Amino acid sequence: MSKPHILIQLDTDSQPSVFDGVVAVDSGVAHLFRHSGITAESVRDRVHGAVFTRGVDDLKSTALFIGGSDVALGERVLTAVKKSFFGPMRVSVMLDSNGSNTTAAAAVLAARKHLELAETTALVLGGTGPVGRRAALLLAREGAKVRVGSRSAEKAEEVCREISEVVPGANLVGYAAGTPEQTAVALVSCQLVIAAGAAGVELLSTQALFNTPGVRVAIDLNAVPPAGIGGVEPLDKAAERDGIICYGPIGVGGTKMKIHKAAIRRLFETNDAVLDAEELYELGKSL
Amino acid sequence: MSKPHILIQLDTDSQPSVFDGVVAVDSGVAHLFRHSGITAESVRDRVHGAVFTRGVDDLKSTALFIGGSDVALGERVLTAVKKSFFGPMRVSVMLDSNGSNTTAAAAVLAARKHLELAETTALVLGGTGPVGRRAALLLAREGAKVRVGSRSAEKAEEVCREISEVVPGANLVGYAAGTPEQTAVALVSCQLVIAAGAAGVELLSTQALFNTPGVRVAIDLNAVPPAGIGGVEPLDKAAERDGIICYGPIGVGGTKMKIHKAAIRRLFETNDAVLDAEELYELGKSL
Amino acid sequence: MSKPHILIQLDTDSQPSVFDGVVAVDSGVAHLFRHSGITAESVRDRVHGAVFTRGVDDLKSTALFIGGSDVALGERVLTAVKKSFFGPMRVSVMLDSNGSNTTAAAAVLAARKHLELAETTALVLGGTGPVGRRAALLLAREGAKVRVGSRSAEKAEEVCREISEVVPGANLVGYAAGTPEQTAVALVSCQLVIAAGAAGVELLSTQALFNTPGVRVAIDLNAVPPAGIGGVEPLDKAAERDGIICYGPIGVGGTKMKIHKAAIRRLFETNDAVLDAEELYELGKSL
Repeated sequence: MSKPHILIQLDTDSQPSVFDGVVAVDSGVAHLFRHSGITAESVRDRVHGAVFTRGVDDLKSTALFIGGSDVALGERVLTAVKKSFFGPMRVSVMLDSNGSNTTAAAAVLAARKHLELAETTALVLGGTGPVGRRAALLLAREGAKVRVGSRSAEKAEEVCREISEVVPGANLVGYAAGTPEQTAVALVSCQLVIAAGAAGVELLSTQALFNTPGVRVAIDLNAVPPAGIGGVEPLDKAAERDGIICYGPIGVGGTKMKIHKAAIRRLFETNDAVLDAEELYELGKSL
Repeated sequence: MSKPHILIQLDTDSQPSVFDGVVAVDSGVAHLFRHSGITAESVRDRVHGAVFTRGVDDLKSTALFIGGSDVALGERVLTAVKKSFFGPMRVSVMLDSNGSNTTAAAAVLAARKHLELAETTALVLGGTGPVGRRAALLLAREGAKVRVGSRSAEKAEEVCREISEVVPGANLVGYAAGTPEQTAVALVSCQLVIAAGAAGVELLSTQALFNTPGVRVAIDLNAVPPAGIGGVEPLDKAAERDGIICYGPIGVGGTKMKIHKAAIRRLFETNDAVLDAEELYELGKSL
Repeated sequence: MSKPHILIQLDTDSQPSVFDGVVAVDSGVAHLFRHSGITAESVRDRVHGAVFTRGVDDLKSTALFIGGSDVALGERVLTAVKKSFFGPMRVSVMLDSNGSNTTAAAAVLAARKHLELAETTALVLGGTGPVGRRAALLLAREGAKVRVGSRSAEKAEEVCREISEVVPGANLVGYAAGTPEQTAVALVSCQLVIAAGAAGVELLSTQALFNTPGVRVAIDLNAVPPAGIGGVEPLDKAAERDGIICYGPIGVGGTKMKIHKAAIRRLFETNDAVLDAEELYELGKSL
């Protein structure tokens, strides 16, 4: 008989996320150990407590979830967690700080329903932020031509270089997209635009969206008004507006939640899963 | 099938209350999310995590409990929680900081067993504190003539005004009750006295209690010696002493606990219950 | 029907131990209340919440576990916990800060498989630390002649006096064991040596161990290289090396874990168990 499933929630914020906790319960976790204030420096003891308490055959019944609002900190915690394993003495771990991985995966999966990604040119606005970078990575993996838009063309180019290192042969270009004029230029010839910017900032106007020929899918991930893409509504889920298929943050949310729950269940199938952006995207494809 | 019941314990103290946690478990909660250090300013994220994770039909399986030793802070948290709901995106919530609501309800319910409250004149000592204010409110709702006793007559009058605003037509008078003489005067013509003062302070002496004609029920809510009402024992539960029916803090405790447990179960029947003093009192009446 | 078993984890560290949490779940605890930052001064409210929520007959379904890396602090918390009980209003409690009690019990139980302890002379290195002191106490209870080794002979003698107070007639002698020469002298005529020093410090060299005639059992409890006893491997479990039966920290770990789990289950049999070093050792004997 397998041991009760324990999920250890490693949250970098001062309070552990209620959102992540409820999703864990709804994914069938029997016991949730909720930790807040987690840092990369101090996580080792938590990991050792997870890997040195059950026999190797039972380690798949213990798993780690890294969350919190600071994605960069979550990434450092994941690195530290992986360093704390000892050969087979390891447990599965998932990173979804600020929902960044499940959101990026759900957005690209939405686009994939309507476009042949390998033949798509995509603009990712807010492309140097955590969600944008992940969306760009996933699109690049699918063979899309990816334009990373950012107020700073330099930072955009840096993200392109980083992704190219892990996706050989990727077709990535950085674009300055800090003004309406720049953004309009960046959008020319794109079939897909994803807005993954800061909350409450419009990155693309209604006019720019509907006046640019060729755009077929627009996905806005900003949940706080005003919308990140003018004209896209939060609840839009493949809503056709003037010939463009639109998704809003809540419209993408259903798929995001499905990926999140499937991922929690996946953690308990083996003791060696590391679920980061690409693994969560692949998982989402299989649902 | 309904989702597992999750109670999110929002405690304003630095450690979450063990008392509230055990009662939650004994009321059938499947998963308890225990938070400490909760403030009105920071509670919104916790509430959003509760309301944005389950479908509207399942939101009745998630609920909030506000506790901790600071009742005024708990009240501010409740206000902030209610502001964080979005229309139907809400969950049931109960406030019982320091047990104030369940204690006041249990005390008035005890009195109601022996007195026709609408025909009763009642003195509430410690009437400006959290439990006293609530007891005065509940008595006023039942149509009793209520005397709010406090060291400061002004503060007592202020509480009377506050209650009158929510209970139109209430008969409330503030009394200075800072000295034995003042308290003796305040007690004249009362059938009921409830002491809800600070721990370990005698508010009414044995002599004053038994020498005032007409007093029929005396309820002391102070659990730390010396008693708040001289001559009333902690375990008294309708104990007749010299013609007066007495209740001590532990004597009232059984009813308090029943209300607390019934209230936790009630939280999971709908997603829109707000259980504050009056709702908990009504719930207690129905038990 | 009995109430759900609630274990209240009182951890003195800033994060509650994951290790202790997983073991609690695997011992069948239904609800784990995990507290961190526990101090002797503030533990009373936690204890009162545990003892004033369930009827006396149900108090055996609530229990306390004191853990954390600071054993001396854990001991003070245990003292404070016991003071917070009110006659029959109490719950069972176990102390195992830093695994000290279960480790010491497991080490002495390992020795007992091979030696008649009442006829054994034993040297406990690191004998003034938390695990060493407990091992010396347990050996003294079994009638062994115990040599407490420490860099400071004075501190060693102090530990001997402390143990003598609780084990009348115990045969204990303090030894300076700060240099290889001193340790070699302390080991003369011993059949058993237990090393319970700080992590990563060699207390006894390979040569000293194998060149001292008469030594039959060597137990090293240091899990961080270099070994506390040269030549003993972490996984050694009754491994015979050059005629000496060796145990390393992981070799002792299986028994330690069995004691820990049995102890958690034992907590829920009555409401008055206090499981400290000696009770855990006795429990281990019965497994």
